[in-house]
Amino acid sequence: MSELRKDPISGRWVIVAEDRAARPNAFCNPPEPIPSGECPFCEGRESDTPGEVLATREAGSARDDVGWRVRIVPNKYPALNAAGRFDSPRDGFYEGTDGIGYHEVLIESPEHVRSITEIPDLHVRETFRLCRERILAYKKDPRLVYALIFKNVGTAAGASLEHTHSQLVATPIVPTAVAEELERELGDGARVVLDLPEFAVLCPYASRFSYETWIVPKTHASHFEAIPPADVDALAAAVKQTVGRIEAQLSWPAYNYVIHTAPLDGQAMDHYHWHVEIIPRITSVAGFELGAGVYINQVAPEKAAAALRNLERSDEARLRQAMSQSAR
Amino acid sequence: MSELRKDPISGRWVIVAEDRAARPNAFCNPPEPIPSGECPFCEGRESDTPGEVLATREAGSARDDVGWRVRIVPNKYPALNAAGRFDSPRDGFYEGTDGIGYHEVLIESPEHVRSITEIPDLHVRETFRLCRERILAYKKDPRLVYALIFKNVGTAAGASLEHTHSQLVATPIVPTAVAEELERELGDGARVVLDLPEFAVLCPYASRFSYETWIVPKTHASHFEAIPPADVDALAAAVKQTVGRIEAQLSWPAYNYVIHTAPLDGQAMDHYHWHVEIIPRITSVAGFELGAGVYINQVAPEKAAAALRNLERSDEARLRQAMSQSAR
Repeated sequence: MSELRKDPISGRWVIVAEDRAARPNAFCNPPEPIPSGECPFCEGRESDTPGEVLATREAGSARDDVGWRVRIVPNKYPALNAAGRFDSPRDGFYEGTDGIGYHEVLIESPEHVRSITEIPDLHVRETFRLCRERILAYKKDPRLVYALIFKNVGTAAGASLEHTHSQLVATPIVPTAVAEELERELGDGARVVLDLPEFAVLCPYASRFSYETWIVPKTHASHFEAIPPADVDALAAAVKQTVGRIEAQLSWPAYNYVIHTAPLDGQAMDHYHWHVEIIPRITSVAGFELGAGVYINQVAPEKAAAALRNLERSDEARLRQAMSQSAR
Repeated sequence: MSELRKDPISGRWVIVAEDRAARPNAFCNPPEPIPSGECPFCEGRESDTPGEVLATREAGSARDDVGWRVRIVPNKYPALNAAGRFDSPRDGFYEGTDGIGYHEVLIESPEHVRSITEIPDLHVRETFRLCRERILAYKKDPRLVYALIFKNVGTAAGASLEHTHSQLVATPIVPTAVAEELERELGDGARVVLDLPEFAVLCPYASRFSYETWIVPKTHASHFEAIPPADVDALAAAVKQTVGRIEAQLSWPAYNYVIHTAPLDGQAMDHYHWHVEIIPRITSVAGFELGAGVYINQVAPEKAAAALRNLERSDEARLRQAMSQSAR
């Protein structure tokens, strides 16, 4: 059983999850990825994971058997567990609660590939469709108020398994529901990478990381799960294209992406825009960042946006090569 | 010239420092350390760094020559520069300013060793004494309001040079001056590692990182630089001893430490306690941490504190071995 603790001074929540220490390489930094021959996410090794929660499958294939395209299973070493109670405060001055919630893994391909750009477009679309379905399911649990979906690629981004996957976490606390207001960024073309019909892709003014790139819906919406199904497919294409540009520009870096959305139990929020943040991990988080909470970015966002925007023209062959592996 | 930018939504500051991209391995994560033979911090290579700002030296030795014990030089690839103006806002909606400030390197030993525990006690004392002197000097520049001192050891902690060193950064903005109130932690023995005459060493209730350990002065003081000179030496001993215990327990991990202190221009603050945070980097900062601002800690602080506290008894030989290298 894990535990949620609130720092009495900063209000910051921490998850104390001792069960995760049982993971292979739990304390190895950078983690050593499990070799493909032993990968529990590969097709044919379905019994190495907990039983599936949701999947897209070939007609006639059976649950927890081969024949899936995209598959969601509980995390074998979860940071949060469905069992338990939300009670707070627990210890006088110190606020805390059982670590209730969900921690699931979305395996985006039965094949042992590394990045979202290496899988067929259908799998990318189904990935985001299933994310939406899971959030709608989490909303039915009255104990849960927040969901975060993120992806770690490469050891420098914290991935301990190489096989392409995302993670879904639903929590009984709201981590940092900062009201955000993004419309202004769209007005300033200097930091726009792509101007798509449904989404704007941009490098924000105060980017923490070099080549940090956000995908923002043009129609105001605070909740990702309220996205119309047709727009899910457009989002899938935008994520794949944007990550492809970043990979072509930076030679396949480690990266994270995160879907930022409003709290589960909230009403539509006027000032919050759901969006996807993509963070290439080409520099480390070191003492200054941990100590001051201030990031040092070595590439002005205007230059990063221009480089990503102009990639088609200046480096078309390289971009096509990066994308062709996956345009099945 | 670097630039300070404030995120218009979160209020978070970012440093855009394009000059730092010229560093060797600037975009290599984890960074590849420069081999000892080419190390610009070793004795005899003083001309490889900018001219020294401050040093402790053998009698008769000359500035920027051999014979130093501890030496402060400007960072060759600074995130902030002394020249420039503080003006804000700069661009209508977007707040920002020239990246003014100081970014200096404190080389803690003429010998090519890695950790604070490998240098003589005299050098450790002089390290903290010079830190104090530099902060007192920064305070004389009316443009500057904050100073952060931190140390990165090991590539997983973001160190790009292996040779033991700290960094000093003075800024014209206050990064995250959260009022902190630490007395309560001291009352709860479960998380106390060491109870020294001047300092308490503890693993805080909501530790973000496994084995995160804080050194807190027992006498209330908001500003590190106001520390009595005798206490500087006690702090040096406490840091060395605490890092030594962490190294013995975790087999020489990468680590950061950070001196947290109140803003330069402030009055004494009732609720802020200066302190040192030591963060072993045995797990990565991944998508969940970056996305939610919530850390997952795999070792309960009570267990970490007990392990570090009992090390003397349970693993005395190992601890002595770790410490003996440096007890010169």
